[in-house]
Amino acid sequence: MAHQSTLEFATPGRGTRNVTEAVARVVAASGVRTGVAHVFVQHTSCSLAITENADPDVRRDLETVLGRLAPDADPAYRHDTEGPDDMAAHARTVLTGNALSVPVGGGRLLLGTWQGLFLWEHRTDPQQRRVVVTVLGD
Amino acid sequence: MAHQSTLEFATPGRGTRNVTEAVARVVAASGVRTGVAHVFVQHTSCSLAITENADPDVRRDLETVLGRLAPDADPAYRHDTEGPDDMAAHARTVLTGNALSVPVGGGRLLLGTWQGLFLWEHRTDPQQRRVVVTVLGD
Amino acid sequence: MAHQSTLEFATPGRGTRNVTEAVARVVAASGVRTGVAHVFVQHTSCSLAITENADPDVRRDLETVLGRLAPDADPAYRHDTEGPDDMAAHARTVLTGNALSVPVGGGRLLLGTWQGLFLWEHRTDPQQRRVVVTVLGD
Repeated sequence: MAHQSTLEFATPGRGTRNVTEAVARVVAASGVRTGVAHVFVQHTSCSLAITENADPDVRRDLETVLGRLAPDADPAYRHDTEGPDDMAAHARTVLTGNALSVPVGGGRLLLGTWQGLFLWEHRTDPQQRRVVVTVLGD
Repeated sequence: MAHQSTLEFATPGRGTRNVTEAVARVVAASGVRTGVAHVFVQHTSCSLAITENADPDVRRDLETVLGRLAPDADPAYRHDTEGPDDMAAHARTVLTGNALSVPVGGGRLLLGTWQGLFLWEHRTDPQQRRVVVTVLGD
Repeated sequence: MAHQSTLEFATPGRGTRNVTEAVARVVAASGVRTGVAHVFVQHTSCSLAITENADPDVRRDLETVLGRLAPDADPAYRHDTEGPDDMAAHARTVLTGNALSVPVGGGRLLLGTWQGLFLWEHRTDPQQRRVVVTVLGD
């Protein structure tokens, strides 16, 4: 069985947004009891990550770490026509990944207690983002 | 067809543990001949990686690389109440990923000769970790 | 339904190669209309990434970023018998990942306008690489 749904999110600029509930609703609607939920952003400058859903400082610190690994306006970048944050956004997307997959059991996402699913905007300006959720299984 | 099994591992603290055989046993039990095995840790401070299964220095060097990208006790971290290794562990998990998926063909994992599946503990203290393996296919 | 095909690519050394069309052909041949295409390299020193398919400078800059995170010939590496680029290649593979999965809808890859699938060679010498594509769904 394969069930698919496309979600749209307006992001206010760089930062994380919890999309766990939105993905969980697609899983519930799918009728799949045992399988995998696959989540995919159709963009090259935002990503998806699973991390702690409790202390928001964790996501702030993740931003700090990623900001060092792929800084804005790095003079080494050749791709700079779309703004000082664009190449950094592409690099952060590749380092963190634009797809996630989570097991489904008993008809729901089998996340650990502290895990949340986050859409991670890497551009500084607001964007409209499309996320395709596909649920596979029995 | 979807087959699911949850494995538990006691980790002795930071480092990698080869879980290839444990995952292969779930694949064998699943009866799936052609498909994908999905492996997922239900935690935010340990991850999964595929890397060389021969020279253990490779995994030691990976630890060195990751230790630079997300050092322990970084003064920039705000999330520091759970110990100097906790935020580093969250960041290393996001950089390396808490899910893996491997093709299944002829009823077994289609890994390359040098590939092994490793559970990567990023906390310095011993932990109990849950890994959900889901095998999808025919 | 599960359809599987192994592709072979000769890489000319370090750099990216667009494999979108090759993967799309496997999806078309699979007969799957709704599902997920899973792409996997059977190696530990090359990886797969989704990034911008337009300006080639993006991929050049990604190489620059990754070259800083896991430099060749780092004196800290202990695994150095296979050349100055080998351990760097293992680390770059772990940071970027050796599997990708893309939703399939209407019988084709549901990629965003600017997304391409790239096989990313991290060794400096030419290599022969095997990529297993598995398409799951209805």
